[in-house]
Amino acid sequence: MVYLTRRERFNAAHKLWVDEWSEEQNFELFGKCSNKNWHGHNYELFVTVKGTPDPVTGFIVDVKKLGKLIKTAIVDRVDHCNLNLDVPFIPKGMQPTTENLVILFWEELAPLLEDCELHCIRLHETENISAEYYGE
Amino acid sequence: MVYLTRRERFNAAHKLWVDEWSEEQNFELFGKCSNKNWHGHNYELFVTVKGTPDPVTGFIVDVKKLGKLIKTAIVDRVDHCNLNLDVPFIPKGMQPTTENLVILFWEELAPLLEDCELHCIRLHETENISAEYYGE
Amino acid sequence: MVYLTRRERFNAAHKLWVDEWSEEQNFELFGKCSNKNWHGHNYELFVTVKGTPDPVTGFIVDVKKLGKLIKTAIVDRVDHCNLNLDVPFIPKGMQPTTENLVILFWEELAPLLEDCELHCIRLHETENISAEYYGE
Amino acid sequence: MVYLTRRERFNAAHKLWVDEWSEEQNFELFGKCSNKNWHGHNYELFVTVKGTPDPVTGFIVDVKKLGKLIKTAIVDRVDHCNLNLDVPFIPKGMQPTTENLVILFWEELAPLLEDCELHCIRLHETENISAEYYGE
Amino acid sequence: MVYLTRRERFNAAHKLWVDEWSEEQNFELFGKCSNKNWHGHNYELFVTVKGTPDPVTGFIVDVKKLGKLIKTAIVDRVDHCNLNLDVPFIPKGMQPTTENLVILFWEELAPLLEDCELHCIRLHETENISAEYYGE
Amino acid sequence: MVYLTRRERFNAAHKLWVDEWSEEQNFELFGKCSNKNWHGHNYELFVTVKGTPDPVTGFIVDVKKLGKLIKTAIVDRVDHCNLNLDVPFIPKGMQPTTENLVILFWEELAPLLEDCELHCIRLHETENISAEYYGE
Repeated sequence: MVYLTRRERFNAAHKLWVDEWSEEQNFELFGKCSNKNWHGHNYELFVTVKGTPDPVTGFIVDVKKLGKLIKTAIVDRVDHCNLNLDVPFIPKGMQPTTENLVILFWEELAPLLEDCELHCIRLHETENISAEYYGE
Repeated sequence: MVYLTRRERFNAAHKLWVDEWSEEQNFELFGKCSNKNWHGHNYELFVTVKGTPDPVTGFIVDVKKLGKLIKTAIVDRVDHCNLNLDVPFIPKGMQPTTENLVILFWEELAPLLEDCELHCIRLHETENISAEYYGE
Repeated sequence: MVYLTRRERFNAAHKLWVDEWSEEQNFELFGKCSNKNWHGHNYELFVTVKGTPDPVTGFIVDVKKLGKLIKTAIVDRVDHCNLNLDVPFIPKGMQPTTENLVILFWEELAPLLEDCELHCIRLHETENISAEYYGE
Repeated sequence: MVYLTRRERFNAAHKLWVDEWSEEQNFELFGKCSNKNWHGHNYELFVTVKGTPDPVTGFIVDVKKLGKLIKTAIVDRVDHCNLNLDVPFIPKGMQPTTENLVILFWEELAPLLEDCELHCIRLHETENISAEYYGE
Repeated sequence: MVYLTRRERFNAAHKLWVDEWSEEQNFELFGKCSNKNWHGHNYELFVTVKGTPDPVTGFIVDVKKLGKLIKTAIVDRVDHCNLNLDVPFIPKGMQPTTENLVILFWEELAPLLEDCELHCIRLHETENISAEYYGE
Repeated sequence: MVYLTRRERFNAAHKLWVDEWSEEQNFELFGKCSNKNWHGHNYELFVTVKGTPDPVTGFIVDVKKLGKLIKTAIVDRVDHCNLNLDVPFIPKGMQPTTENLVILFWEELAPLLEDCELHCIRLHETENISAEYYGE
């Protein structure tokens, strides 16, 4: 079993905000992340798949195909978007935290992989914060 | 003459959008950067000052003081903000491009430096794009 | 189960030196790391916790709180310190190798986490050397 | 159990090419990687071993000895080489993909480790693509 | 005057080899870089242009257009190529050193820039070696 | 004129401390950097030389020779050392700040270069702080 990781990047705006809370309550928990006018990030996305290298091609997956799948399933739908407003697969009212995003990205990508198995979605929000999800 | 550089970071939302243009015109020039719901970046800011090291302290500037000045003059006013809406020193209607930001940041910071001279403002918007300004 | 990682940094001096050994024996095993006048590193510390995102906040942990805990438990006690002399939780005579430090850091931090579980302590001593510990 | 990782680097040329296929077939699957005149990469190799820190030295392995072993077993035999032509332990006709290389590197290095156990071979071909192998 | 830098990347094979010299002479000066079967690198290319931000668009240049020009003039002609054999604008027999490449890249790109002026070509061959050229 | 940059790295301990001042005065200016038991850094050193590429070799300097010169003149004399105590060319009592070090390194290296001219010494103390010196 070999694990192959491909990095993709996207830029997006978001805020952390619970509608049922007051501005003060939102600020108390989320701090500056609750700014009603949004802030944003350069996200780095690492997708890891696993499988056995094909004896002829040496591939566990065609990494260019994998890149296209990641773009179709995730990057093209979040890049230069507002994660609270623009992305159909992020439920309205769900906080677009790094933790929630890795789960949502898994659910979009996993069903599309045919030749190999999804192993991990890792997402870096800043150089200091990242989250990982292994499907359960 | 020695040059000292300090890095700071901030996260912000913005869009590129000319009010006088139609949505199509904006999209034609600015592409996805014109998304009306904003996108955002992790900005890396490099401030370079120049001077002669003090014979006793070895400093051309107290780098902690410099860091505080950069925070007061720039970072605290843009971090987790919307660059089109929230920042008093960015004129309304001016595009918050990396090119414009380095000039605006220079104008905010330069007058506050006392012991050394500002040499360069460099700003990275992504790992692939950065701008520099030397004051003229 | 989602894994969240937060990076912190600190700078410290240390040396590798066994008191019971001669200078030659120490140099033979530890090389330049045995210099009696110390050397030092910029350490990068990655703390990974695991848990389930809260359905309202999207957090497995408040990452700002986590940052403060890491600072209180570890970073503030080792930053700009001498790891052989200044740190109460590093036993005298224990080598401050990257391998030992990840275990000691785990023991300081794990009992303080309330809302989530510590998963991994990773410490980079240089860009070429790092160690990880998973609690057993 | 502590995990220690050491990074080494090497530069090499290669191409992806199945002799039994036509130039068109090779280009269809491998794209520009099938260029008959080769291309190349700066590879980053991360070797992770596991063990218990020695109570006296604090080492799970002497990291300088580990570095020398990695150089002898792998780096000196692939650095500034052509991975399709110059490396005895890469079978002729096997594609030098990142996936295949991590398995081959494991097989060269694992038998040479005496004081600790090999845990993982990770190889980065570009900043966007890497592979990992855990020995099975 | 503002300076804008765009990074592009490419992977290529090359060797350093003077035809008029013996294999020993080539090895004496170029070391492993003279391997007759080639080696290769992940190159990082930084192109810096200068100009005044447009008062309406905030651009000194449309960075997407600039990216396309760099791709057309340089990256598409060297990516996944052999720098000694495949690139028409590298004279046969000229060593494809980082120093020579920055000059050649300047000569290809400078005439194509219309709205702004080329300021610097910087090329990283490895994380330890880079070259810069300012047009004279 | 082409500029060639080579990176080297070293690890060292130091403190910032003026003997004529009290502990309180030292702490007031230097903060944690005045810890009497030292702290340390992973330093990154970038040496830039300038010259014209040789028409036969494509070199402005043999980069391996340059690397050896940098090691002999600087790196081997500061690596795994205490910058306040162990380095003959750092005057006793002079603060080993990044600003002072770039000047001292210039003075050690410049006289040894024969085939090319020293252009810049850049030294990174942390990922956030660096200094540059151009010889005057």
